[in-house]
Amino acid sequence: MKVRVIVSLKEGVLDPQGKAINHALHVLEFPEVCEVRTGKVIELDLDEENPQRAAQRAHKMAESLLANQVIEDFIVEIAK
Amino acid sequence: MKVRVIVSLKEGVLDPQGKAINHALHVLEFPEVCEVRTGKVIELDLDEENPQRAAQRAHKMAESLLANQVIEDFIVEIAK
Repeated sequence: MKVRVIVSLKEGVLDPQGKAINHALHVLEFPEVCEVRTGKVIELDLDEENPQRAAQRAHKMAESLLANQVIEDFIVEIAK
Repeated sequence: MKVRVIVSLKEGVLDPQGKAINHALHVLEFPEVCEVRTGKVIELDLDEENPQRAAQRAHKMAESLLANQVIEDFIVEIAK
């Protein structure tokens, strides 16, 4: 089962990379961009057929390794 | 409208960071992990109310700046 963990910076934490992308997109004539935030995605292939249990385990992995919960939030999604 | 662009390495492109996470998860007693691939997520806040048009523009942004299509694939999702 494929599970996706999306880790992004918490609201209020500065994101200079996002700011740089925002600026570059304006230069490239995408004026409709208001804000850009960057993050990481970790795609896990788990040997687990039950989607609920897979999501639960991925949640634990995110807590213990994938995300730094002081400055980052994460969400777990079952990949289609 | 919030749009999410997920950029990940193409199949066959080596992902040492993913390999390192895979190893670390095994050490942390998550033996069910078979494979890990890492990528980037770029969350765009666009001044555009039409979801189809927003996705189209995000697609263009990914092509021209966000993804390196030689080694990376991307998908565009309208964020819930």
